Amino acid sequence: MARRAKAGKLVAGTAAYSDSDMFKSPQAFNYPKAKRWDHLLSPEAMARKPCALKQAATYLKNPGVLSLGGGLPSPENFPIESLKRSEITISKHDIRDKDAVYDLSVALNYGQAVGSAQVLRWVTEHTELIFRPPYSDWRCALSIGSTGRLESALRLFCDRGRRDSLLTEEYSFSTALETIAPLGINVVGVHVDEQGLLPKNLDEILSNWDESARGARKPTVLYTVPSGQNPTGATMGAQRRKDVYDVCSKHDVYIFEDEPYYYLQMPAYDKANSAAKPGAVDTSSTQSTDSFLQSLIPTMLSIDVDGRVLRMDSFSKIIVPGSRMGWVTASEQIIERYIRHNECSSQGPAGFSQALMYKLLDETWGHEGYLRWLMHIRSEYTRRRDALLDACEAHLPKEVLWLSVDHTRHPHAGQKTILELEEEIFESCIERGVLACRGSWFRAERDVEPTGLFFRTTFAASSQADMDVAIQRFGQAIRASFGI
Amino acid sequence: MARRAKAGKLVAGTAAYSDSDMFKSPQAFNYPKAKRWDHLLSPEAMARKPCALKQAATYLKNPGVLSLGGGLPSPENFPIESLKRSEITISKHDIRDKDAVYDLSVALNYGQAVGSAQVLRWVTEHTELIFRPPYSDWRCALSIGSTGRLESALRLFCDRGRRDSLLTEEYSFSTALETIAPLGINVVGVHVDEQGLLPKNLDEILSNWDESARGARKPTVLYTVPSGQNPTGATMGAQRRKDVYDVCSKHDVYIFEDEPYYYLQMPAYDKANSAAKPGAVDTSSTQSTDSFLQSLIPTMLSIDVDGRVLRMDSFSKIIVPGSRMGWVTASEQIIERYIRHNECSSQGPAGFSQALMYKLLDETWGHEGYLRWLMHIRSEYTRRRDALLDACEAHLPKEVLWLSVDHTRHPHAGQKTILELEEEIFESCIERGVLACRGSWFRAERDVEPTGLFFRTTFAASSQADMDVAIQRFGQAIRASFGI
Repeated sequence: MARRAKAGKLVAGTAAYSDSDMFKSPQAFNYPKAKRWDHLLSPEAMARKPCALKQAATYLKNPGVLSLGGGLPSPENFPIESLKRSEITISKHDIRDKDAVYDLSVALNYGQAVGSAQVLRWVTEHTELIFRPPYSDWRCALSIGSTGRLESALRLFCDRGRRDSLLTEEYSFSTALETIAPLGINVVGVHVDEQGLLPKNLDEILSNWDESARGARKPTVLYTVPSGQNPTGATMGAQRRKDVYDVCSKHDVYIFEDEPYYYLQMPAYDKANSAAKPGAVDTSSTQSTDSFLQSLIPTMLSIDVDGRVLRMDSFSKIIVPGSRMGWVTASEQIIERYIRHNECSSQGPAGFSQALMYKLLDETWGHEGYLRWLMHIRSEYTRRRDALLDACEAHLPKEVLWLSVDHTRHPHAGQKTILELEEEIFESCIERGVLACRGSWFRAERDVEPTGLFFRTTFAASSQADMDVAIQRFGQAIRASFGI
Repeated sequence: MARRAKAGKLVAGTAAYSDSDMFKSPQAFNYPKAKRWDHLLSPEAMARKPCALKQAATYLKNPGVLSLGGGLPSPENFPIESLKRSEITISKHDIRDKDAVYDLSVALNYGQAVGSAQVLRWVTEHTELIFRPPYSDWRCALSIGSTGRLESALRLFCDRGRRDSLLTEEYSFSTALETIAPLGINVVGVHVDEQGLLPKNLDEILSNWDESARGARKPTVLYTVPSGQNPTGATMGAQRRKDVYDVCSKHDVYIFEDEPYYYLQMPAYDKANSAAKPGAVDTSSTQSTDSFLQSLIPTMLSIDVDGRVLRMDSFSKIIVPGSRMGWVTASEQIIERYIRHNECSSQGPAGFSQALMYKLLDETWGHEGYLRWLMHIRSEYTRRRDALLDACEAHLPKEVLWLSVDHTRHPHAGQKTILELEEEIFESCIERGVLACRGSWFRAERDVEPTGLFFRTTFAASSQADMDVAIQRFGQAIRASFGI
């Protein structure tokens, strides 16, 4: 108690760095240090590298640095004000005392790895209502966060000992790549355009695969984010999804469809009618849920006649990341194997999360209410996206979120590598007080030299005013580097 | 909505089985089934077997079957009555509005894989107050449930490609064994007595290891549950822990110390003074926390001068299983690698769990209050243990919880194998309306014939009256099989 009093109030905001040394007593450091265990650690453990996005957070310790970096949602959009608000009260014996369907006596005890029946029912119904898989033996299972279930899915289908390969967008989500690498899986980048994966390039890679030249088996899995792909922002249209599916079917490639941004599909940016303009009209509250659903591109699960897709749904971007709960949908065979793995790993999402999300999704909102929430949150993000693009229009020559910088026009092009230019601009951004993610963090194939100079920015967390200042600083850093 | 109305109220109690087929529409089954993917699944995925304890729950569907099987805590002992009770109210902006240390705007956003600083502080302080590791660079990290962190720890230290081996009690926790097996790790059972692991046998195994005869590397890791070992109930005394540690040190074996039952160390059963007797006096509320702590055997972490122990602490048995939150303590090197893995898997416990457990552990109880809760819960379990042993005294010839049946006295001994006798008694128990776990589910080395006939019973969940009836039924099943 004395130590706590001396330390003063703990100030630790969102994703604040901490370690035990910050909380141990001075006396704890009087002992000698532990032995080292390099000779016992596994190749997988030794191969792990720090998470680029979590490391990037350390730059935010510098006072005044504005973040266009990590995609942390703004708490203003969390639909939970307090764990005491009346509609999400849940008590120990509600089943016994109030004829309820779910209560803490069940939710806080051990459960099944597939998740509780109460929540599984809701996600199954949602999946059928919206995605309608066109084969009969599909099933759902609850999952912990997106990264954890990707790890599980990778271990289901990929094996270091078989020299397995996995396909993904040539620029792919950095944490996904960091999850794949220590498992010893060979990653193959597929070329993309503004609609994401190019089916022709996918087919070329698979048709011309030379196992001995590549030192790896022909790829058997595609990992893709079809909507709002991270980091490029690309969204595949319906025909593109069908074409990619057909190439996978031709080569018997299994598909991991990771869709955290599915419900955030936005109308194209229209400078003249920016949703961030003062007085812009928000139609999300008057639109019908049917017209909302019709505006969404069908998922790959919805065209999956083979049962070839493991679809991953998430609440992180549209409700809260802190539930660490989502779900997967696939054929019975795959879900059964997935559950077996869950039983020997996470054992499913936390009971606190299942209890509170059930109250919100099923008893408070219901399916209709959830769709209305999604319409609201899509409109919120559209406003933020437009604010960022307005700032890009005002302060930058380019206007895409996945900021492509024409390195060939740099005065030191040819003398410095793209990675050196990228580092120079990144450091210059930090000095000017803005954090943007380096494109190289997202390269699928790390041992190949990049051919373009990119930065990823996000509109998830910052206010409109901050985004304007941040993009201004970013533009200054580019101009200073290019001497223009 | 019509389908839900037709289905009626969902009745799904603790760990109820469910799958999506229960919640899909009849039309969903009109499509053909998915393809099968055996040719793509990994060896690890193919090797997974169903969890014995979760499968055992299916027997509980039979009306009237009493469970001595799975160790599900009784919800009567959950210290959370409602998520609305005043002392665990937490709101979105408590840091900003109420000068609080933690709030939902932080807890429900993305966090660090080590856990939030707020909760990490509490577990670090608790670790230092109670366990006092005797080296300087120890650290803690939050973990998801015990199974998930065991999987992580296994992947840190063991590798199929190196043909790694792991030591454990010859009868070990079935879910732990099921977690180890698909990873291709060779499991070696160490003989035990009523104090658990026998250091002499441990030393013999390690000293006489013949890599080519065993087809596996000399073991580098020991997985042990020193207190209330599952399933034998054995607790290592202080000297035994020291002796085991010394053998590990001699052979450079790393130790996973899994301690979910550490605070449930009970006084020896005294038939004449059973805590389950009407009018038995509960001294837990008047005892001092110092005398409680002195009654506990020091942990292996507390004698760990090498930093050779990865200690695993859990709230599942002493608060609620549904937090899916615990913590690990080890040297900085190992915790750093553990965090790297967390970043690419669970990303740490759910924010809902961290928020609510913080409010309970730190703001409601504090360290002193938590110890008082532990004293209370230990007393609760002592009463239940004594009730089970009273029932064994009344209805069975033997009086240990890990029920050892003398198979040599069975009339068919020699004609039937131990596994056949075990199955016969198990089925007879189910017929008579009692579920006890088969000892063979816990065998460390599955390919070796068992030499003893065992059943595991638990006193965690049932009422005193039910335990009496359940043990009576178990005794009848034994007597019927033996014809006595």
